[in-house]
Amino acid sequence: MSLPSSTSIEQPQPRVHDVDVITCKAAAVAWGAGQPLVIEQVNVSPPQPMEIRIKVVCTSLCRSDLSAWESQTIFPRIFGHEATGIVESVGEGVTEFTQGDHVLTVFIGECGKCRQCESGCAVKISSLVPLEKVCLLSCGVAAGLGAAWNVADISDGSSVVIFGLGTVGLSVAQGAKLRGASQIIGVDTNPEKGENAKAFGITEFINPNDSKEPIQQVIKHLTGGGADYSFECIGDTGMVTTALQACCDFYSFHLASFLSGVCLKGWGLTVTLGVPKVKPEITAHYGAFLTGRTLKGSLFGGWKPKSDLPSLVEMYTKKEIQVDEYISHNLPFEDVNKAFNLMLEGKCLRCVIHMEN
Amino acid sequence: MSLPSSTSIEQPQPRVHDVDVITCKAAAVAWGAGQPLVIEQVNVSPPQPMEIRIKVVCTSLCRSDLSAWESQTIFPRIFGHEATGIVESVGEGVTEFTQGDHVLTVFIGECGKCRQCESGCAVKISSLVPLEKVCLLSCGVAAGLGAAWNVADISDGSSVVIFGLGTVGLSVAQGAKLRGASQIIGVDTNPEKGENAKAFGITEFINPNDSKEPIQQVIKHLTGGGADYSFECIGDTGMVTTALQACCDFYSFHLASFLSGVCLKGWGLTVTLGVPKVKPEITAHYGAFLTGRTLKGSLFGGWKPKSDLPSLVEMYTKKEIQVDEYISHNLPFEDVNKAFNLMLEGKCLRCVIHMEN
Repeated sequence: MSLPSSTSIEQPQPRVHDVDVITCKAAAVAWGAGQPLVIEQVNVSPPQPMEIRIKVVCTSLCRSDLSAWESQTIFPRIFGHEATGIVESVGEGVTEFTQGDHVLTVFIGECGKCRQCESGCAVKISSLVPLEKVCLLSCGVAAGLGAAWNVADISDGSSVVIFGLGTVGLSVAQGAKLRGASQIIGVDTNPEKGENAKAFGITEFINPNDSKEPIQQVIKHLTGGGADYSFECIGDTGMVTTALQACCDFYSFHLASFLSGVCLKGWGLTVTLGVPKVKPEITAHYGAFLTGRTLKGSLFGGWKPKSDLPSLVEMYTKKEIQVDEYISHNLPFEDVNKAFNLMLEGKCLRCVIHMEN
Repeated sequence: MSLPSSTSIEQPQPRVHDVDVITCKAAAVAWGAGQPLVIEQVNVSPPQPMEIRIKVVCTSLCRSDLSAWESQTIFPRIFGHEATGIVESVGEGVTEFTQGDHVLTVFIGECGKCRQCESGCAVKISSLVPLEKVCLLSCGVAAGLGAAWNVADISDGSSVVIFGLGTVGLSVAQGAKLRGASQIIGVDTNPEKGENAKAFGITEFINPNDSKEPIQQVIKHLTGGGADYSFECIGDTGMVTTALQACCDFYSFHLASFLSGVCLKGWGLTVTLGVPKVKPEITAHYGAFLTGRTLKGSLFGGWKPKSDLPSLVEMYTKKEIQVDEYISHNLPFEDVNKAFNLMLEGKCLRCVIHMEN
């Protein structure tokens, strides 16, 4: 999740192909797991062939930055993959970008060789789009919308349950709402998360700590046998099992049909988006699958960055999707540790960190 | 998996609604787990409202009969769910069936109340269809074809790997072949299973015991990064994990695209069909999902019995699907224990057991 140090630079502005090592005055360096970041100068090599060097304008802090900061073993390290910036210089062979282009960074590429996709170290966007907002489309908001649309392909009138109401979970909720889901249940142990969740489409909020019954049973009652779709957005493999159990299966499907007089459109689908912080193995009884459930992973919501992100940016400019609403805090770069603490304490959705000008 | 004892009857032929308890002269009763079946007389109650009483003509022995026979705790028990027969009498309220109708038995129903499906204690078929063949469509062959067509929706030109080459696995192979899969790899530790597997569409046979490398690595080499689809047809939850690992993920997907110059159509999908005999939990690293794989369960191949089985029977009569080829043995009813032994020893595909006339 770490970008090369070349992402944080301030000056100079050399001509294309006339670039050298530069000194980046503002990089937040982690020297060890969980240690406060230190703002210091780093040297940034010139872009190699097919690489570009980007002046980062804004970075929105993602929970996976924190997970990496807490658990990675190799340091020093510079975080901040959910970013927007301006191309500072380009390496040999780069024809797609020129100095001054506005870009979204992407943490996965496209293969660059096949018919359906061409190169992508970043995604070019219009210079009219506010960089301090659309950085959220570089990871979190896009990941949630894509999980709802591309991976789950949520259908109109369906029931959805979302475990974990951070930016990713609430973006799944927005995606589900825009697809016409009739019931969107949000689950989080942080009671504060329930407050503004409805603005993103959540129709019911459940705090598992408020219930004596196992959460999957509560959901089965609420949905008449189990949800059509469940999403694990916490990063807890144990919760993936719960999410599977919260989905409808063959038997509840027929029971629900019997009671409602209509056939549901399919059996339960569970999508896992989270990166687990503790136990990496997902365990589930085979019966959960044999009775018709599906477990699917979602990496960046199934988007092909270069092909698909421009249309998401366009949806944002047309006000067809919400992005600004996920930004709970705006902080200057020197407050980067404050941003980390806010997220650690569950007190923010997205903190946008603004680089010095 | 046990049918009510009413499935094995011989006489008499009472008028509809004029039925009583009958004595069934030929029922193969298991009195304990793993104990030889004993052929004896049983009394069969008249059909209750919305029930029918069927004179079984043929039963093809399914591996799940053996699993139940080995592991169930409640006995006595009569096995044989993969059957064809003739309606002997009908209970009150039954309008769909009359005495003399030829039927396939089904082990799952349809809800009977919703728009898309109507009642189903059995499926009516044409009296011209050979009952001693199409009993295989009541479970095994239909389960495999459906897993390939309905659950996985295998696409033309794709690569498929099948773990376990019994009737279900070889029916997946047939389904994959008819969908135009270009590579269909069969995996089985029984070397004899490889011999006639090609007749069902298997293009390569691998015996894991012949290889020092883990089987998922062998498959990755053969498929250029992992199969598009993998099917677990053994009933071994450990093998589900292997099947997931044998599938292509996001990274192998892009590598394969890079090498071949074309984009594959999707990421890896693993379908689990087997009923595990030992460990019921499926365990897999979250990364297997996060990098784009999907795990899906298949119960009776996703078919709705009453709606869909007649079209499968029709495909058989038009010679569009193979069924006869799975019948390795035909045995009279008194040799029912021989059939169980053949399957235990892995020496048969399907044994069709013919009831006395």
